Amino acid sequence: MGPHPAVAAIRLAVRRVLNDILAEHGRTPGRLTPDERSSSPLVLVACSGGADSMALASALAFEAPRAGLRAGGVTVDHGLQTGSDLRAAEVASRLRELGLDPVEPVAVTVGRDGGPEAAARDARYAALDAAAERHRAAAVLLGHTRDDQAETVLLGLARGSGIRSLSGMAAVSGADGRYRRPFLQLDRQTARKACLVQSLPVWDDPHNTDPAYTRSRLRHEGLPALEKALGKGVVEALARTAQLSRDDADALDAWAGKAAAGVRDDDGRLECAALHDLPPAVRRRVLRRAAIEAGAPAGSLFARHIEEVDRLITGWRGQGAINLPGRVVARRQGGRLVIRQG
Amino acid sequence: MGPHPAVAAIRLAVRRVLNDILAEHGRTPGRLTPDERSSSPLVLVACSGGADSMALASALAFEAPRAGLRAGGVTVDHGLQTGSDLRAAEVASRLRELGLDPVEPVAVTVGRDGGPEAAARDARYAALDAAAERHRAAAVLLGHTRDDQAETVLLGLARGSGIRSLSGMAAVSGADGRYRRPFLQLDRQTARKACLVQSLPVWDDPHNTDPAYTRSRLRHEGLPALEKALGKGVVEALARTAQLSRDDADALDAWAGKAAAGVRDDDGRLECAALHDLPPAVRRRVLRRAAIEAGAPAGSLFARHIEEVDRLITGWRGQGAINLPGRVVARRQGGRLVIRQG
Repeated sequence: MGPHPAVAAIRLAVRRVLNDILAEHGRTPGRLTPDERSSSPLVLVACSGGADSMALASALAFEAPRAGLRAGGVTVDHGLQTGSDLRAAEVASRLRELGLDPVEPVAVTVGRDGGPEAAARDARYAALDAAAERHRAAAVLLGHTRDDQAETVLLGLARGSGIRSLSGMAAVSGADGRYRRPFLQLDRQTARKACLVQSLPVWDDPHNTDPAYTRSRLRHEGLPALEKALGKGVVEALARTAQLSRDDADALDAWAGKAAAGVRDDDGRLECAALHDLPPAVRRRVLRRAAIEAGAPAGSLFARHIEEVDRLITGWRGQGAINLPGRVVARRQGGRLVIRQG
Repeated sequence: MGPHPAVAAIRLAVRRVLNDILAEHGRTPGRLTPDERSSSPLVLVACSGGADSMALASALAFEAPRAGLRAGGVTVDHGLQTGSDLRAAEVASRLRELGLDPVEPVAVTVGRDGGPEAAARDARYAALDAAAERHRAAAVLLGHTRDDQAETVLLGLARGSGIRSLSGMAAVSGADGRYRRPFLQLDRQTARKACLVQSLPVWDDPHNTDPAYTRSRLRHEGLPALEKALGKGVVEALARTAQLSRDDADALDAWAGKAAAGVRDDDGRLECAALHDLPPAVRRRVLRRAAIEAGAPAGSLFARHIEEVDRLITGWRGQGAINLPGRVVARRQGGRLVIRQG
């Protein structure tokens, strides 16, 4: 008798990612002798102790030795709740029980930049980066599911800043593609079920149900209401939108990259006539890129800024200079668009 | 003392569109003599009697004579409720009271194709097209607001079929750009306020609050829950996403149109190697276009179909032919991709 379907699903998802990692290291899947093992690549799982990442850890513990990879785990103690250090130690011991080695609990200090969620995320990724380098890990697996992806797309939608912000989380991201998300096509329910049938204890982070957090409100109120109105396929549709938007945004960025070179005169200044001939979607990306190159911080540069600069090209009526974030100024001068700090 | 801000806002929105229409007819805004009037272009408003389209009708009645345009109205009786004919006659008399001429109530028969909402929409646009041609109208104004646009984006999102379905309604659409939506940047609340301060009676269509309709559930439950989770700016963000997505989709369609010619051999067959070199977003559009040219109905061709065809290019392992809607078959033959009916 094979494993429960939920367990089969989480293992298959992890196996695919491990095969990718092996191929990138010029290896083929297969068990190793103890001697070979010590030099085989290490894959870490980032585990909060919640259902998604516990399921991921269990699948990694099962698949890694069969693929010929070493598997370890990291759990981050954000220090935001009393007893979080004990919690992290408990998660670490569960990871060791699964057979992962090395396993490391890492304590971080969460700052305040960008709000509580962003600050916790920044501290977490910094700790994971450091752990990956300390252990020379080939990859770090993250337990984000299709449901997390759907929430991320809606959060991006609320920014209204275009398709890049709709493209959610990438299956592969970080320095040298360090981070991998094997569960991005898998629903949260399957991960939870896999823990249940494997008798893995899971920990429900109270933050995940705290309505003070935007993502929590979205998860427990926004998305269910949207599913009630639009039908059960919404999560899947949002996840598919993420993938399609990512590919579209990549293609348009590539186009804008090429176009940016073609619209400059011999002195490197942007020619308004050449900009005018570009499709609006490409022109806006060229302008955004030019503003960032001139020193405007990407995170503060909104669609409305770029629209205003665009009107210097498409709606020229002699208007004055446009002020952009980072003390960057855009102005039209004799058929040229000048964007610079000053 | 000028008009109430809500009235000023609806008039400005209509004035901008009328100026566009005048410019397209080589005219400049300005009052006309009775003689000139009879030959001036006619702009119709499609009016249900609801707040949005009553506000639109009132603004058109005010602005059209000042711009040198004739203004008329059409109200469609869908025949779906008892007394809908009396309702249509009442709306028509209100439009006449506003000074619109000609005004015509049009009765339609709603079929069943594609569900109740799609069938009503098809019947309505057919009637508006016919009325526009009967009266040789230069344009037909529609009262869709920014809130309608936000709902349309969410409905497109639920399809999960990519950024074209996120692009909502166009400001200009239909044969020769017949349909114009002056209120696409204006919120529903402003239209309602404008009716109130002008003492215009409005009719609330019971369909708009009937939870049997997807759009109604979205309006009264889905969107409010999303606003509660994500903040009040959601409607504006969705409307901005529509515009950005539309421009992006247009640019990528143009790219795919050019690329489609470059990936064919001398016999017009698609070359797999050339397809492989295209960015995924462009390749998928080329494949979709080829499937439609081969006879696959666009409405039945989903993202998953195109993904499967794409794997003949990017994940070739000798797999068999792919069946697409409309008895279209895609297969790989000796480095060529053959897509045809049969």
